[in-house]
Amino acid sequence: MSRFWSPIVHSLTPYTPGEQVAMPKLVKLNTNENPYGPSPQAIAAMREAVADQLRLYPDPNASALKEALAGHFGLARDQVFVGNSSDEVLAHTFQALLKHEQPLLCPDISYSFYPTYCSLYDIDYRVVPLNADFEIDVADYAQPGGAIIIANPNAPTGRALALDQIEALLAAHPDQVVVVDEAYVDFGGASAAALIPRFDNLLVIQTFSKSRSLAGLRVGYALGHAELIAGLERVKNSFNCYPLGQVAIAGAVAALQDSAYFEQTRGAIIATREALSERMAAMGFEVLPSKTNFIFVRHPAHAAVALAAALRQRAILVRHFKQARIEQFLRISIGTDAECAQLVAALDEILAG
Amino acid sequence: MSRFWSPIVHSLTPYTPGEQVAMPKLVKLNTNENPYGPSPQAIAAMREAVADQLRLYPDPNASALKEALAGHFGLARDQVFVGNSSDEVLAHTFQALLKHEQPLLCPDISYSFYPTYCSLYDIDYRVVPLNADFEIDVADYAQPGGAIIIANPNAPTGRALALDQIEALLAAHPDQVVVVDEAYVDFGGASAAALIPRFDNLLVIQTFSKSRSLAGLRVGYALGHAELIAGLERVKNSFNCYPLGQVAIAGAVAALQDSAYFEQTRGAIIATREALSERMAAMGFEVLPSKTNFIFVRHPAHAAVALAAALRQRAILVRHFKQARIEQFLRISIGTDAECAQLVAALDEILAG
Repeated sequence: MSRFWSPIVHSLTPYTPGEQVAMPKLVKLNTNENPYGPSPQAIAAMREAVADQLRLYPDPNASALKEALAGHFGLARDQVFVGNSSDEVLAHTFQALLKHEQPLLCPDISYSFYPTYCSLYDIDYRVVPLNADFEIDVADYAQPGGAIIIANPNAPTGRALALDQIEALLAAHPDQVVVVDEAYVDFGGASAAALIPRFDNLLVIQTFSKSRSLAGLRVGYALGHAELIAGLERVKNSFNCYPLGQVAIAGAVAALQDSAYFEQTRGAIIATREALSERMAAMGFEVLPSKTNFIFVRHPAHAAVALAAALRQRAILVRHFKQARIEQFLRISIGTDAECAQLVAALDEILAG
Repeated sequence: MSRFWSPIVHSLTPYTPGEQVAMPKLVKLNTNENPYGPSPQAIAAMREAVADQLRLYPDPNASALKEALAGHFGLARDQVFVGNSSDEVLAHTFQALLKHEQPLLCPDISYSFYPTYCSLYDIDYRVVPLNADFEIDVADYAQPGGAIIIANPNAPTGRALALDQIEALLAAHPDQVVVVDEAYVDFGGASAAALIPRFDNLLVIQTFSKSRSLAGLRVGYALGHAELIAGLERVKNSFNCYPLGQVAIAGAVAALQDSAYFEQTRGAIIATREALSERMAAMGFEVLPSKTNFIFVRHPAHAAVALAAALRQRAILVRHFKQARIEQFLRISIGTDAECAQLVAALDEILAG
C-alpha cells in the first residue's frame, strides 16, 4: 500500500498465473501449453522477421494478420481485432464492452481472470453457478444483466456447450453483448464464429497460445460485428497503438496458414486426452468430459492438494485451484504420450501409497 | 457509436500515430525511428529465441530483462517494471499512479497521448503551458495537483531540462508522484534515473524503440521506488500477466548489453542532428535546440502545412501537429546523413520555388 497509488490499486486482487518453474526433467502439465512446438513455417517466418526492419514501428493495424484471420473465418477485416495475447484482448473487451448499469453475468467457475478485470475497471458483476454437473446452463442467464461472458469450452472444467445453446443465449439477449472466450475451442469445441453474421451482439475471442503452440509469442484476437470491433479499436488506440510487433504478426500469419501442422498436432492432443481420460477413470478418478487440451479430475479417496504435492515431489506439475466447489479437482494439461505415461505411473505409485 | 459500448468509449479520442506508409524510395522522417538497425547481437539473440520453446508461456516477471536493467542502472530488481512498449508502461502508470482527487499536471505541449490516457481512465488533468521559448518551467508546477507527468527531453519540442531542474521539481512535490518520460533521453539528455535512490516519488520511463532501434519489438520500462513499481505490477497482473514474450525479452537484454553499438549509433544520430540543425538555421528556419533524435522547426515565411505537403510530394514524410501554439512547426526525425541531405535538397528547392 502506498500513498502514491491511485485508489483503485488498493482494491485489486491480481491474477495468479500457473508457475513457470525451471527444474530438470520437469513434466509441466500446469499451464495448458501445447506439448508440440510451433509450426515450422511459423518458426521460419519469425526468423525472417527478425531483421533490420525492427527499427521501424509495426503496422498499427496489423493488417496482414487481420486479413489472414478474416480470410480464415470468412469475415470482413473490420470484424477482426488483434492484441498482445487474448488476455489483452479480454482486458480491452471488459473496458470497452462489458461495463454497463446492470451487472456483467459470468459463470461462478470459469477463467479466474474475469473477476480481476472487473476489479480493474470497476465493473459490477454477478456470478451464475454452473449446474451440478459443472455445465453452463444458458437458461440460468435469463436474469437482468448488462452483458454476458462465458468460456466455451469452459475452463478449468473443460466442458463445452453445443452451438445451439450459444445460439439460444444470443437470441435471448439481443441487447447485451455476449462474449464467448474460445481459448480452447480447437480441441473439440464448435466455434461460435459461424454465428457472427447473424448476431450483432456476439464477440468471439481466440488465441494463438494453445492450439497454435505460440504461448510465448503473445497473440490473441476477437471476432464480431464491426461495431463491437470499433469499440475495441477505440480503447486499444487509447492504450497502445502498436500492441503487436513484426515478429508476432509474421509468426501468427504463418501459423494460421499451416493447416496441415495444426490438424496433425491438435489431432495428437485429442487422441492423448481421450486415452488419458480413460486411463484415469480406470484408476478411480472422476474425469469431466473434456473438449480442451486439459482434463479436470477428482478422486473420491484422495485430496487434490495431497495429490498435487505428491506429483510435484516427482517433478510433475499440475494445477490446483483453491476455490469453492472445485477444491478437490486437479487440472491436468495434455502433454505428449510419454509425459502422460509418466503422470500415470506416478499416480499409480501415489494411489498405491 | 453503439449501444453495446461501455459509456467511457463514447468519449474517447484515440491517439493518432504517425503514418506508416509503404511508398518506394520513401524518406521516412515522421515517426522518430532510428535510421540504423538494431544491434547485431540483439538480432542474433532474437533469432535464437525463435524456437520450439515459444510453445511455452514466457516468464511472467521477465526476470532476465529486469535483472539486466537493474544492473545497467544500478538499481534493485524490484525497482524495475517492464512492458509491451513504453506506451503500455505509460498506460499502466496513468491507471496505477496518476489518478487522484487533485488533477494531474502536464505540459500543454508534450506527448499527445497523455490526454488520451486521461480520457481512458477518467483522470482529471490540468495543462501547464510551456514558456515562450517552449521550455518547461518547473516553477509553474507550484500549484495544487495530484501528480505530475513531463517528458524530458520533451516531445515534440526536443528541448531538455537539466537534472537540477528535475531535482527541484521532485523536492517541491514530495507527496506527488512525478513521472519523467525519457523516451528520447539517450540522444543528449540527462536521465533522472540517478535520482531514484533519493526520491521515492520519482518514476522514470524509457523505451527500446528509439536509441536501441527496436520500435518493432515493443519493449519499454519504468524505474523507481519499489513501492511505485509494486503499484504498477498490481495493475499489470490484473491486465496481462505476460506482456513480453521470449523474443522480446531476449532481444532487449542483448541490445542493452551491446554498449559499443549503442554508443556508435547514438553518436552518429547526434552528429547528424547538429549538422542538420545548423543547415536548417542557415536556410532561415527557427530550430529549437534538440536533445532528441528529431528537430522541431518553423520557417517565418512558409506555412508548415504547405511545407509538409511539398515534402510529401517528394516522398519525404515529416510530422505536423494541428495544435495551438505549434501549428507552424514541423517535427523532423533524424535519418541517415544521406536522408537528411535529400531533405535539405528538397527544402532548398521548395523554398526557392
